[in-house]
Amino acid sequence: MPRATAAQVAKAAGGIIEPAGGDAGEVILGGLAPLAVAGPDDLSWFGDKKYRTDFEASRAGAVIVPRDLETDKETVLIRVDNPELGMARAAVLFAPVAEHPGTVLEGALVHPAARVAEGATVYPLAVVGPDSEIGEGAVIYPLAYLGARVKIGARSVVQPQAALMDGVRIGEDCLIQAGAVVGAEGFGFAQTPEGAHVKIPQLGSVTLEDGVELGANTAVDRAFYGATRIGRGSKLDNLVQVAHNVDMGPDCALAAQVGVSGSVKMGRGCFLGGQVGLADHITVGDRTLIGAQSGVPSSLEGHQAYLGSPARSFRLAQRIMVSENKLPDLIKRVRTLEKRLAALEAEAAPKGE
Amino acid sequence: MPRATAAQVAKAAGGIIEPAGGDAGEVILGGLAPLAVAGPDDLSWFGDKKYRTDFEASRAGAVIVPRDLETDKETVLIRVDNPELGMARAAVLFAPVAEHPGTVLEGALVHPAARVAEGATVYPLAVVGPDSEIGEGAVIYPLAYLGARVKIGARSVVQPQAALMDGVRIGEDCLIQAGAVVGAEGFGFAQTPEGAHVKIPQLGSVTLEDGVELGANTAVDRAFYGATRIGRGSKLDNLVQVAHNVDMGPDCALAAQVGVSGSVKMGRGCFLGGQVGLADHITVGDRTLIGAQSGVPSSLEGHQAYLGSPARSFRLAQRIMVSENKLPDLIKRVRTLEKRLAALEAEAAPKGE
Amino acid sequence: MPRATAAQVAKAAGGIIEPAGGDAGEVILGGLAPLAVAGPDDLSWFGDKKYRTDFEASRAGAVIVPRDLETDKETVLIRVDNPELGMARAAVLFAPVAEHPGTVLEGALVHPAARVAEGATVYPLAVVGPDSEIGEGAVIYPLAYLGARVKIGARSVVQPQAALMDGVRIGEDCLIQAGAVVGAEGFGFAQTPEGAHVKIPQLGSVTLEDGVELGANTAVDRAFYGATRIGRGSKLDNLVQVAHNVDMGPDCALAAQVGVSGSVKMGRGCFLGGQVGLADHITVGDRTLIGAQSGVPSSLEGHQAYLGSPARSFRLAQRIMVSENKLPDLIKRVRTLEKRLAALEAEAAPKGE
Repeated sequence: MPRATAAQVAKAAGGIIEPAGGDAGEVILGGLAPLAVAGPDDLSWFGDKKYRTDFEASRAGAVIVPRDLETDKETVLIRVDNPELGMARAAVLFAPVAEHPGTVLEGALVHPAARVAEGATVYPLAVVGPDSEIGEGAVIYPLAYLGARVKIGARSVVQPQAALMDGVRIGEDCLIQAGAVVGAEGFGFAQTPEGAHVKIPQLGSVTLEDGVELGANTAVDRAFYGATRIGRGSKLDNLVQVAHNVDMGPDCALAAQVGVSGSVKMGRGCFLGGQVGLADHITVGDRTLIGAQSGVPSSLEGHQAYLGSPARSFRLAQRIMVSENKLPDLIKRVRTLEKRLAALEAEAAPKGE
Repeated sequence: MPRATAAQVAKAAGGIIEPAGGDAGEVILGGLAPLAVAGPDDLSWFGDKKYRTDFEASRAGAVIVPRDLETDKETVLIRVDNPELGMARAAVLFAPVAEHPGTVLEGALVHPAARVAEGATVYPLAVVGPDSEIGEGAVIYPLAYLGARVKIGARSVVQPQAALMDGVRIGEDCLIQAGAVVGAEGFGFAQTPEGAHVKIPQLGSVTLEDGVELGANTAVDRAFYGATRIGRGSKLDNLVQVAHNVDMGPDCALAAQVGVSGSVKMGRGCFLGGQVGLADHITVGDRTLIGAQSGVPSSLEGHQAYLGSPARSFRLAQRIMVSENKLPDLIKRVRTLEKRLAALEAEAAPKGE
Repeated sequence: MPRATAAQVAKAAGGIIEPAGGDAGEVILGGLAPLAVAGPDDLSWFGDKKYRTDFEASRAGAVIVPRDLETDKETVLIRVDNPELGMARAAVLFAPVAEHPGTVLEGALVHPAARVAEGATVYPLAVVGPDSEIGEGAVIYPLAYLGARVKIGARSVVQPQAALMDGVRIGEDCLIQAGAVVGAEGFGFAQTPEGAHVKIPQLGSVTLEDGVELGANTAVDRAFYGATRIGRGSKLDNLVQVAHNVDMGPDCALAAQVGVSGSVKMGRGCFLGGQVGLADHITVGDRTLIGAQSGVPSSLEGHQAYLGSPARSFRLAQRIMVSENKLPDLIKRVRTLEKRLAALEAEAAPKGE
């Protein structure tokens, strides 16, 4: 793993080193670890106040901290506006640098009618179909499959075992992880009177805008018409399902095993927890947060948090979950009330006569 | 994309053109789109009455409509019994025609003891193991894997990155999408007294009957004994799990991320929404509908709809979901009732003396 | 399928044949099937008392039974301590013996700087990256991908379409099924003030200890730092997600479509039903049982069973599920109580004057 000095870390993170003026910037760091685990060779970060104790006790060689943190701790500090963001930017220094030859290697199966830009790498046993285009600096790993008329933007990476079916368009700086399938057939069938399924040919395509990442074994269906779209910078974790004609805005983050049904329209900056399911044809507003395992049967307004199956406002869902614990007992209490009330009524009745 | 005339559409859809006798049949269409989106170059369809406004305003070049629709709209109409079915049949006209060379291409890894029928295509970098059989007109894409003794029926298609393990039998006109795995090991283990798992070898196989489709990255386990079976014409979406010894009837449709546990016996024509889970060894009757995210712990009678986890009759499940919204408040109301009742009782008690 | 005598079965299962002294041990068996299905050519087993009727009526050629079973049934019996375990051990006799050439085959893409031990098999179209090591007797199937610095222990098997990314370490006697991805990027991003996701490079790796099995299309993420770990002998079914920095103990069993979020610490011998989801950073104690579709938001004590979303003790969850059926009615009953009580109060009030 590459090594970096505290000065390099500060530069990458956009921060200021402390103590200033000394040789703090020359401290050499070999990796990254949380406060409780980091040793003198590690960079760490302290953003969330609940880790204060870990911070005070940490043996980290340097720590990225909030700009206004008050502390007497004798460690190299790197002060930034947002420690987690600073850490993300500094961590790149420790990541192994992938080197690719920037050419089509022998054993790659590139169709003569495909165009591979200068500086792009196509590894052996990768398949690139006719009329496909690979942008500058893109990397197609061994055993990746690109069908016909696939377009891969500059610097995008397609990992092994991924399949990009005919006509799929991938923007720049995208990452298609191992086993992901883009442009799978949409799931559309009409039924005969006898109940047989007649396939509705899915004539559309898929567009991933710039900076999109798809996790391992994630599936994105081609559109019935037009294109299934995943907006700029959106990130999908592993084993996610995106059905035909979904239109997802930029900067969304979908955790693993989420399922997005057909024609869902999702705004920008939405966060979906693991195993969330969205019904088809609904709209999800900008910056919506949906808790793990929620099931969303109908459209959701943006800028709010939801939870549960069916999904409700986060606060109501939590109150229901707490209330459910009391439900078995509540039934008994109501039964008791009914008996006591009946007794009172019986007592009251004769008096009324 | 291929183009088609309204007359060709009418023929494919089994419908009648209106206005008759003119040149309506010669209108040329270039694609398919919903009413609200379609332009003069597009075919559209109008089946569900709730889209009446969209229909009246639609700019579509031609619209497939119910045979008895009353309308003054001046568009080319194609009258059919079932517009969605008609649309499915007409859409084929606009789908690109896949052309395959119908032979084993150089670079395909076909075992000498495999048999490939006339007119079948095996692409480069596809693997076909010993004693496997590929039927007439079948297509094995690059990077698809077929183990030993795999049988592929006529006209079936195996997409890239799919894996058909030893002994798997695929019927005619099947589609195995990218990344699907058929014949994975069933998940069967016995436990030693110390808690270690001892694998139970899964000696059976998998049979997909004619017309079955498996979505991207779907997994079907081989049977413990005999064969896991998926019935004729059943369609499975992406990322579905079918465990060992499942016996699924014909014409079922399973949406994405459904999980069917071991030895489930499912009837014909069942519809399962996304992320549904079925417990092992249960029976699901014919034409059962199961709503998305339902969890089914025990057998279900057919010809009914179910919802929820645990799954209940659709109507009860919906009533419960509505009731849950009132649950937190209900607890307060019961507490209030208890206090008020206690007060009344206290009042009543002395009077009784 | 290989055949075996009852004597061979008894030896493999660690049991005693009955009737003793005769030629019972020479009965030849050709397969394995449950009691109700088995014919005279099949071995069966009888462990669970609820199958007593099936046992009495079974036509099986031989049956593995509990050591102390009392029966007059005239069949070849093989008495063992644990019939299911005995069956698992005997079933191996009927499993086809996979024969591998034990060498690197022509057409395999093995980097010159990779080391392949004696007796290991690397099939054609498998990819093995630089500095990777394949242990003795290991098998790398066609179309499997191993990146750089991957280590595969002795006798481990990597099936087709699997991807083991750079630096992943697989122990001995492991099975990586088709389409599984080990060492996928962890899902870690920091957000800019504008809401864009900045990737946090995942610098760690994955360690699968000895005897681990991963199902088809299962994904295991590399760690953010250090290593994601799956403990010795743990078995993961198909389509399971294991996020970065999960630390799973030995002998766990995770059914299909389970999702384990980042940094979960799981003890030994846990059983998770299908589609269970675990929130990040929680701890799950030893021998925890979690029912299918449960959602676990917080840490769980071991040696107990849980169910539901959110997960509760199994007993409470079941009581809640039963109570929910009465919830719609309960609301009506409370409304009735309120009216009756109000009437009583109204009656009582004037009397009090």
